[in-house]
Amino acid sequence: MIHFARRMKHMNRSEIREILKVTEDPEIISFAGGLPAPEAFPVTELREAASLALETAGTKALQYSLAEGLPSLRRKIAERSCTLWDAKARMEDVQIVNGSRQALDFLGKIFLDEGDVVLCENPTYLAALSAFRAYGPRFAPVATDDEGMLPDDLEQKLASEKRARFIYVIPDFQNPTGRSWSLERRKALTDLADRFGVPVVEDNPYGELRFEGEFLPSLRALGNPDLTVSLGTFSKILAPGLRVAWLIAPPAILEQIILAKQAADLQPSTISQMQIDTYLERFDVNAQIARIRALYRARRNCMAEAIRETMGNTVSFPFPQGGLFLWLRLTEGIDTKALLAESIARKVAYVPGEPFHANGGGGNTMRLNFSYMPEERIREGITRLAGLIKEH
Amino acid sequence: MIHFARRMKHMNRSEIREILKVTEDPEIISFAGGLPAPEAFPVTELREAASLALETAGTKALQYSLAEGLPSLRRKIAERSCTLWDAKARMEDVQIVNGSRQALDFLGKIFLDEGDVVLCENPTYLAALSAFRAYGPRFAPVATDDEGMLPDDLEQKLASEKRARFIYVIPDFQNPTGRSWSLERRKALTDLADRFGVPVVEDNPYGELRFEGEFLPSLRALGNPDLTVSLGTFSKILAPGLRVAWLIAPPAILEQIILAKQAADLQPSTISQMQIDTYLERFDVNAQIARIRALYRARRNCMAEAIRETMGNTVSFPFPQGGLFLWLRLTEGIDTKALLAESIARKVAYVPGEPFHANGGGGNTMRLNFSYMPEERIREGITRLAGLIKEH
Repeated sequence: MIHFARRMKHMNRSEIREILKVTEDPEIISFAGGLPAPEAFPVTELREAASLALETAGTKALQYSLAEGLPSLRRKIAERSCTLWDAKARMEDVQIVNGSRQALDFLGKIFLDEGDVVLCENPTYLAALSAFRAYGPRFAPVATDDEGMLPDDLEQKLASEKRARFIYVIPDFQNPTGRSWSLERRKALTDLADRFGVPVVEDNPYGELRFEGEFLPSLRALGNPDLTVSLGTFSKILAPGLRVAWLIAPPAILEQIILAKQAADLQPSTISQMQIDTYLERFDVNAQIARIRALYRARRNCMAEAIRETMGNTVSFPFPQGGLFLWLRLTEGIDTKALLAESIARKVAYVPGEPFHANGGGGNTMRLNFSYMPEERIREGITRLAGLIKEH
Repeated sequence: MIHFARRMKHMNRSEIREILKVTEDPEIISFAGGLPAPEAFPVTELREAASLALETAGTKALQYSLAEGLPSLRRKIAERSCTLWDAKARMEDVQIVNGSRQALDFLGKIFLDEGDVVLCENPTYLAALSAFRAYGPRFAPVATDDEGMLPDDLEQKLASEKRARFIYVIPDFQNPTGRSWSLERRKALTDLADRFGVPVVEDNPYGELRFEGEFLPSLRALGNPDLTVSLGTFSKILAPGLRVAWLIAPPAILEQIILAKQAADLQPSTISQMQIDTYLERFDVNAQIARIRALYRARRNCMAEAIRETMGNTVSFPFPQGGLFLWLRLTEGIDTKALLAESIARKVAYVPGEPFHANGGGGNTMRLNFSYMPEERIREGITRLAGLIKEH
C-alpha cells in the first residue's frame, strides 16, 4: 500500500471536469463548462504573433526566463489594469501565472495551514474551493445577496474567525451567479478588511466582458493596496489554451508568491508570454474584446429570453450584466444534482449549484453557461431543460 | 502583519535563480545555471511547428483541453520511452506537466505530510530539495559513490525510516555530480524499494544526452512498475522556454497526480503541447539530439582538459559521460561558498556544492555547467577559476 499525504483526502476529481468529459460528445448542448466561444479566438493574429515573437526574439523566446514573468508583458498588464480599474499597479507588482487557477493554488499555499479559515461568497467559484482545499482550510461562507456580501455578516465572521487568512471574492459577473457587487458593498468590504487587517483576494476573470453599465474601480483602488490581491487572465479575452494569467499584489505578498512559483514550476512559458506580448503590441485587443462582448451579449439575451418563455415564473435568476454565466433557481425541493443524469440523457449539460456552496445547500440551483453555444442551440437546450423541469 | 502559512518558513529564494540574475550580465562567464546552449534550439522548426499546429487545429489549439495532456503527445512520449529505456509505458501512464519542476512539486504534494521522510542521493538536485521542502519533509541522504547509492546504507535507512515516502534519484548524469549509476546498483535499488514497498522517483532530464557508453534500462523496466515514477522533459532536447515535461507513473499514483494537476493549474498549455507534437511529427528529433550531443561532448572535453591543465592534482572530478554538469572537488578546507563573491568579481559564476547536500557538507565542492558557454569562454573561465583557487 502506497502511503499518500493527508491533504489528498480533501481533494476530489473536479466535478466540472468530469462533466466536461461527457460534453466532448458534439451532440450534447453544453451549458456546463466555462468555455469561451472558440469562434471568437483570434487564431490568425495569435499565429502571426507567435511567428513574429520567434522571429524577433530568436533563441531568447525558447530559453529559461524570470520566475516573475517578462517585464514588458507585466508592464502592459499593469498599465491596462490602471486604465480600466484604477488598479494603482506598476510592472513590479505583477506576477505571471499559468491560468488563474495557479494563482488560487499559490494563495492557498502561502496563506493556509490546516484549519485556517477562508471567507468567501456563498455560493462561490467551485475551482477556487478545490484549489484551497488542497491546504486543508475551513470555509466560512458569508451571506451574499445581489449586491455582494452583507457587511453585517462579514463583520461578524471577521470578528469571530480568529484564523481568517483572506477573503475571496469575485466582484464582477461572479462565478457561478453572474451577479456584480455594488460600489457601496465594495467599499464596505475593503473598509472591514482594512479594519481587521485581513487580505482580500479579488478574482476578476470576466471584468472586461461587461455588456452594460459602467466599469467600477478595483478593490485595490478602493481599499488598502497592501492588503489586496487582484487576479486577471487572458483566458476569457484571448484564449484559455495559452494558460497565461496574472496576479497583482503588494510587495510583502508578492515575495511569498515568487517563492511559491519557483518551487511549483520555476517560471511561466517564455514563448507564450512573448506571443501575447507581441499580440498586444501589434493587434487591437480592444476590438477583440468588443467582438466577444457583442457575441456574448446576444447569447445572454437569447438564453434569458428562452428561459422566460419556456419556464416563466417557476424559476428566477439574477440578470447578468456581463461574464459567462447565468444562475438559475428552481422551485424548492427540486434537486438539480439528481436531475443531471436525466438532462444528460436528453443531451443537455449544466452544473448543479450545490458544489458551489462551501458548506452545502443550493440543491435547487444550477449554473448555465451562455458563452459557448450558438443561439439556436441555446434555445433548443433551454426548451429541453424546461420540459424536464416541468415533469418534476 | 499578514499571517503566512508555516510552510513558507521552509522555502527560500532559489540560490541558483539568484545567481542567474547576476549572470544576465553578458560579461560573466557562467558555469552556474543549467542552461542549454541556445544555439542548439531548433528555432525555425519550432516556429513552423507552432504555425502548422494553429493552422491545422485552429481554435482547438487555443481552447481548454484535458488535465492529463494531449493523447497524441502522451502516446509519442510513451513510445519513445519504451524504445530508449524499455519503460513499459502506455499513453495512459503519461501526465504532461509544466517542466519537471512541476512534477517534483506534485510528488511533494501527493506524498508528503510534515515530518515525512524523502530518501535521496547525497548530494542531489538542489531544486528537488526546494520543491519538496514546501511540504516540510525531513531528508535522509543515502551514502552515494560513483556508481550510485550504496545498497547497505539504503537498506539501513529504509529499515530505520518508518516514514520514508519515496526514494528520489537521478541515475543518468546526475545533477550536480554528472555521475551515472551502474546497472548493478540500479537493480539493487529497485530490489530494495520493492522489498520495503517504497516508491522510487527516477528523474531523467539528461538521459538522452549520452556522449559515450550504452543506454541502460529505466528503473521502471528493472523494478516494480507499480512503485516507479519516471520524469522526463523536452527542456534539454528541444527548449526549456516551452515548459513541457512529463511524468510516467502507475495508475494508483497517477490518479493522485491528476488531482494535483487540476488543483494546481487545471491543465498544460494546449498550444505548447500541439507545437511539440507537430515538431515530433514533422521534424527529426533524433538528428536534433545528435547535434546537441556533439556540441556538449566537445564542451565537456574542453572543460575537463582545461581543468586538468590549469588545476592539475589540486582538484578531482567524476568524468561525466553525458548531461550538462561537472562536479569539482577542491582540497579540504576551501569554502566554495565564500569564494563565490571573489569569483563573480572576476566575472566567473558557478554554483557552490554545499546547498546540494540535504543536511549540509560538501563545502569544498562546486557544480560547473559545460553546456552553455562556447569553448573559448570555457577555457578562459576555467583559467580564471584556477588562478583564484591557487590563491587560496
